[in-house]
Amino acid sequence: MTSTPDALNAELAQQTELFNRLRIDNSDPAALEESRRRLGEIKRELAALKPGGKDAKKKERLLLKTPKGTRDYGPGEMFCRDYVERIVKECFVLYGGAQLDTPVFERKDILAGKYGEDAKLIFDLEDQGGEQLALRYDHTVPLARYLAMGGVTNTQSKLWQVGKVYRRDNPVMSKGRMREFSQADFDISGQWDTMIPDAELLSLLCTILTRLEVGEFTVKVNHRKILDGIFEVCGVPPEKIRPISSAVDKLDKLPWSDVRKEMIGEKGLDAASADKIGEYVKHKGGRPLLDQLLADATLTANAKAKQGLDEIGTLFTFLDAYKITDKILFDLSLARGLDYYTGLIYEAIVEASAPPGLTATEKPDPAPAVPKKKSRKSGGADEDEEIDESQVGVGSIAAGGRYDDLVGMFTAAASSDGKKGAGLPCIGVSIGLDRIFALLWPKWVERGMRSKEVFAYVLAAGDGLLPERMALVQELRAQGIAADFLAKNKPKLNAQFAAGERDEVPYAVILGGEELKAGLVTVKEQRWEFVDGKKAKVESTDKGTQMPRAELVQWLKATETFRDWSGGRLIRQ
Amino acid sequence: MTSTPDALNAELAQQTELFNRLRIDNSDPAALEESRRRLGEIKRELAALKPGGKDAKKKERLLLKTPKGTRDYGPGEMFCRDYVERIVKECFVLYGGAQLDTPVFERKDILAGKYGEDAKLIFDLEDQGGEQLALRYDHTVPLARYLAMGGVTNTQSKLWQVGKVYRRDNPVMSKGRMREFSQADFDISGQWDTMIPDAELLSLLCTILTRLEVGEFTVKVNHRKILDGIFEVCGVPPEKIRPISSAVDKLDKLPWSDVRKEMIGEKGLDAASADKIGEYVKHKGGRPLLDQLLADATLTANAKAKQGLDEIGTLFTFLDAYKITDKILFDLSLARGLDYYTGLIYEAIVEASAPPGLTATEKPDPAPAVPKKKSRKSGGADEDEEIDESQVGVGSIAAGGRYDDLVGMFTAAASSDGKKGAGLPCIGVSIGLDRIFALLWPKWVERGMRSKEVFAYVLAAGDGLLPERMALVQELRAQGIAADFLAKNKPKLNAQFAAGERDEVPYAVILGGEELKAGLVTVKEQRWEFVDGKKAKVESTDKGTQMPRAELVQWLKATETFRDWSGGRLIRQ
Repeated sequence: MTSTPDALNAELAQQTELFNRLRIDNSDPAALEESRRRLGEIKRELAALKPGGKDAKKKERLLLKTPKGTRDYGPGEMFCRDYVERIVKECFVLYGGAQLDTPVFERKDILAGKYGEDAKLIFDLEDQGGEQLALRYDHTVPLARYLAMGGVTNTQSKLWQVGKVYRRDNPVMSKGRMREFSQADFDISGQWDTMIPDAELLSLLCTILTRLEVGEFTVKVNHRKILDGIFEVCGVPPEKIRPISSAVDKLDKLPWSDVRKEMIGEKGLDAASADKIGEYVKHKGGRPLLDQLLADATLTANAKAKQGLDEIGTLFTFLDAYKITDKILFDLSLARGLDYYTGLIYEAIVEASAPPGLTATEKPDPAPAVPKKKSRKSGGADEDEEIDESQVGVGSIAAGGRYDDLVGMFTAAASSDGKKGAGLPCIGVSIGLDRIFALLWPKWVERGMRSKEVFAYVLAAGDGLLPERMALVQELRAQGIAADFLAKNKPKLNAQFAAGERDEVPYAVILGGEELKAGLVTVKEQRWEFVDGKKAKVESTDKGTQMPRAELVQWLKATETFRDWSGGRLIRQ
Repeated sequence: MTSTPDALNAELAQQTELFNRLRIDNSDPAALEESRRRLGEIKRELAALKPGGKDAKKKERLLLKTPKGTRDYGPGEMFCRDYVERIVKECFVLYGGAQLDTPVFERKDILAGKYGEDAKLIFDLEDQGGEQLALRYDHTVPLARYLAMGGVTNTQSKLWQVGKVYRRDNPVMSKGRMREFSQADFDISGQWDTMIPDAELLSLLCTILTRLEVGEFTVKVNHRKILDGIFEVCGVPPEKIRPISSAVDKLDKLPWSDVRKEMIGEKGLDAASADKIGEYVKHKGGRPLLDQLLADATLTANAKAKQGLDEIGTLFTFLDAYKITDKILFDLSLARGLDYYTGLIYEAIVEASAPPGLTATEKPDPAPAVPKKKSRKSGGADEDEEIDESQVGVGSIAAGGRYDDLVGMFTAAASSDGKKGAGLPCIGVSIGLDRIFALLWPKWVERGMRSKEVFAYVLAAGDGLLPERMALVQELRAQGIAADFLAKNKPKLNAQFAAGERDEVPYAVILGGEELKAGLVTVKEQRWEFVDGKKAKVESTDKGTQMPRAELVQWLKATETFRDWSGGRLIRQ
């Protein structure tokens, strides 16, 4: 990011030209927005480098930026994000979910002891006298806190929450790895029969990813009890099970040789145990893998492993009923980092999930090219470590698992006698909306998406006609037609057309003084098409349709465009 | 809140009975939820009071609660909140807005110097090495920061943002005065002709409040330039203008005599000036008030006052075109607390806005009953001052104004030569979603609203039929029909009906083993009505409709209920 003034000036010239071109032909608002953003960045970088500015003076200058690891989303981007959120919410409702909302911060003791090694990434609020607070790290722990507070009546629920969560990790912005990011969670709580809620959640996840058109995806599944059984069978002492599990969790980013080194070196496991683990965790597959493991007498002699394998077997029969078997990959190397999982775990990946050199569903062995600095290893501080973004993948786009003990941890800790409180089995999934946005957004830009939904632009051909324009937009809006006009007393006709075109408004309604007296208005349809990656207005010889003003609303609502509009079909096919 | 154990135990018995009754007749999920919540509270309070618990032991116990001034919103409440948000967003789109999203925290220097006396209420994040951050206090300053970063291309925009903002004030939860609360903002930036964007915003606000059915409302308007002119004319020295303005701002909560005392005592104004101000700020009205002020030669000799009065005159003509004149009250006592306003200011009030003893649109003089402790006077610390909630009103439900200098403040502060940066005139409105929720929610509870949208509940009359139930819900969901089933292998038929009824699901789809083999299913419509404030299932002798399984989707989609559903008509009329 630290470029020389020369390089910056060269880019400034280039970007200014691009920006002006985009502004003039006015066909691609998304690219224009990107260009604007970059232009601003270059200018700020140049200003910061300006010679003659004394250090003392520099410090006084306000740095105009968002905090590290966060960003603004402008109109075009929010149009895309809103589309993603809408589909996710629709699916949550289809699956019988009800919405929950919890505060963005929690009391610190609520978050304590839930995140293992990653607890260092929690954002704390300043102690301003009163409670010790921290920003939420995920939606799962607040949900468990809510369920624990609710007592018996919340024992059976399907709850969802969409909102931002916070982690002081090293960000990789272009891949949607942020310090502030949006997660959409769906959780099922209650005493249900084995693996039924688990199958519901996997089905929900597949439905969402299919409807979002994220491309080919795979949902890797594994079971904490199988993993723990494997670790026991391979001779891992009890106190090392979670640390060794954390090491296995890195297999999607590191080759086995590195993970093995971590197990033996950092975590003090003997080499023989590590090698035995290595034999197990290289397996992935479907039902045949399950049969193979069930035939492994050493493994099935372990009660935990046996229970886990049986549950995976039950799950497989349900996946057939849900018709999603082909999307699921049983993968023994999947471990998930969070401490609180107790049963089935899963994560969804696409091709872009993997860093270059690794493929998303293949075992990363032999040693591939990996980024020199790993964000997972960095501490919570603002080290401003440089990450080579080209060497990082998007990572999993959704993940989750069963956490049967988390609610019980809360009720126990809150009980007066210190006894075990009432537990509540839960399973959930978190969908990483920023990572999905990072996958979809380039396609939107390519297709040249709109960023506004204005349907009718009201223009005056006569002498301003301001009150008349105001009254008409007001009437259209009251009828559910998004309308706008140019906020000038006496604007030129061209300026009004240009403003309407900037937002790609499909209908121009033109008011003329004489026409209005006769009770008439003129409507002109305007169309844009997307040719060779560029948006262009379709030229038309249409002089517009004159009609009684009283019929305008009805006429507009009868157009095919309006019916598409109100049905939410905003995606260019 | 500190009750005796006896009182708590009495309430516990009472509440338990209510809760059980609600659960059994199962007709009012919202009341059930409220009862559940209260029951949890009582139990926790009782547990905390339990004798024999040593202090040391007490401290170790986890306090299971949300942070002060925040709360969870459960399914019923979120259904209502979602309805409010959806209407607000629809209106934002109707008025030509485009969506923006900024981070929930900002660099501290971005927020500094924008909020006057209220800056002490800002929530700071802990310094964990790196940037100094604070939670956003409103959406206006982040928007201005975004516009300042964007440079020239953002000069003409209508942007909206919905999200949470944070203030360390003393909360009054029942009135929607929270430390974490949701605001929906709409802002217009750009060089436009006088008062046109201002009228657009007032029209937008009136449309939203009308569509939300908040009851009779009034939008009070005033102009900072008129106020400043009045202060100058009354002899307020320049350095005291903002403090005196802050004092005037309290006139909706305090009688004039108290405000006068603050002006003279705390703020050192001479009594004659205060009395002159008192004469002006008691005025409110419409066009006649404007004419009266324009006839006041002393006032119109002041250039600022004259400009403000002329702008109000222009605004009045636009209000007629928008047909909202009857909703607007020109009120010289309206001052608004924030420092950054420069022109028109406004706030929307309903009857519930005022504390008891004051009416929302009347001048609070002579001295009425006011709360003994005022939240506005408290510092930012967690003083845990008790507020008598019955003595506090909801306050304004929306407010805003023109802030022409804020973007310029940012560009100037960020410029390398310290010169004035490019300014950008802006005007905006913030809608207080929590206060609107506080107004609407009791009506929803009264009407017994649903909290879920499940449309079909799939039951097995035969021997479990689990894969068949899974396959059918899956098929219904794929067709856009929200569906659910009981996650048990072999549930009893009654248990399945009870689960479907809990969510008020309108159609039960019953699978039988023999029927299924013949390719048939049975659909039974279930209806609920709301009689004497209670929800009740409408008993029916209907044995259900048998139909080919292949026709089920089509049949369900043809029902009137489904058409209502997908049209979002979730409100009970």
